[in-house]
Amino acid sequence: MTRFFVDPETLHAQTVMLSGENAAHAKVLRLKAGEEVLLCDGQGREALCRVTDGDMTLEVLQRRDSKTEPKVSVSVYMAFPKADKLEHVIQKATELGAAEIVAFPTSRCVSRPDDKSLKKKLERWQKIAASASEQSGRGRIPQVVVLGSYKEALSRAAKANCAILLYENERATTLKMALEAAPLTTISILSGPEGGLEEKEVEQAKEAGLQICTLGSRILRCETAPLCALSAIMYSAGEF
Amino acid sequence: MTRFFVDPETLHAQTVMLSGENAAHAKVLRLKAGEEVLLCDGQGREALCRVTDGDMTLEVLQRRDSKTEPKVSVSVYMAFPKADKLEHVIQKATELGAAEIVAFPTSRCVSRPDDKSLKKKLERWQKIAASASEQSGRGRIPQVVVLGSYKEALSRAAKANCAILLYENERATTLKMALEAAPLTTISILSGPEGGLEEKEVEQAKEAGLQICTLGSRILRCETAPLCALSAIMYSAGEF
Repeated sequence: MTRFFVDPETLHAQTVMLSGENAAHAKVLRLKAGEEVLLCDGQGREALCRVTDGDMTLEVLQRRDSKTEPKVSVSVYMAFPKADKLEHVIQKATELGAAEIVAFPTSRCVSRPDDKSLKKKLERWQKIAASASEQSGRGRIPQVVVLGSYKEALSRAAKANCAILLYENERATTLKMALEAAPLTTISILSGPEGGLEEKEVEQAKEAGLQICTLGSRILRCETAPLCALSAIMYSAGEF
Repeated sequence: MTRFFVDPETLHAQTVMLSGENAAHAKVLRLKAGEEVLLCDGQGREALCRVTDGDMTLEVLQRRDSKTEPKVSVSVYMAFPKADKLEHVIQKATELGAAEIVAFPTSRCVSRPDDKSLKKKLERWQKIAASASEQSGRGRIPQVVVLGSYKEALSRAAKANCAILLYENERATTLKMALEAAPLTTISILSGPEGGLEEKEVEQAKEAGLQICTLGSRILRCETAPLCALSAIMYSAGEF
């Protein structure tokens, strides 16, 4: 079914006229009277609608919670990587059902966007999340968040019911052990940049309350690790 | 520990002189006498070696099975995607521990490399697998295989103990159900191109003995689905 993201208030109306990009999109699709479409507020609520004329007017039939959102809320914390890897992770993590993607600096980060470029980049990143949400049929657009320090990332991540640091030198604790020991409600997974985290940083994470976990004996690239963990968490939570 | 891929015969020697790219690499690394390195045959066997002089001569200390190979053997069957997505999947699937990556045509594939370009591409794809193996510390280089038809892909994939087709329109059978019903020894996961598989093709897969599984209620891109499933399988098999 065709999906359009609209302002949350729009869902309260009885009749909706599509506008802007949505209207253009509807025109391309040549929606016909009688067809059903979904309006999503991007926050997990949606309205099932029927096209009332051959144009862009919709009658709201039913309001409901989105059926495609995972029950578990996973926040993906990623140290700023080089080049366009963050864009890749935002797109894929959105498809895979992440609740938010949080970027932050660590001492080995090569890429550190300055305040000036950050505003523009954040806009671009949020657009990537919106577009991936639409394409994958999600009811919620994950928020892309940028934090100013590693310390801030740790204390924010630690608030989840299950807060995990993915670390290539960990041998004893697996992701499975961490997931089986906690209720799968809110989860944070935090991972480092290309050069990895410093040992000191791993210690800081432990002190902040994060569990240090391995993703197995193979070394994953910085853009692969969070997506591998996110896939495993969704699987473990019974999503597929 | 530094790793070099060498011919399988090289592992039988008592003393090994690095040559070619390996020698160049060793020079860059400035290996010192006494340092330990690993020689891998790319097929799951390796030799722990000690540098005997400040140059490129190694003394073999111990031959053993690679410690970084997963116990489960997963073959990733992917319909030819557009652009460089296959390269992406080869790199990531190698990191994640795939045993082989098998590409094949389906009726909705837009990209169908001809025989002429295929030889060159296959060489390039195999190099990507080798490089990802080295970087991720694997003991085995996955084979990249190209098949001529969808039918051939089905009958080859069906030989695994657990053969799975990932299909976005499946609702009832989850990946978890399929994995829990079979011994996790050899597994094939097969997925379609950008436009998805045709219903007829899904029927053919069923007839060939594949189980049709969902990866959840969100629609994953063709390059995301196999990597998500592979991550979940490795997790399910106790790799992390």
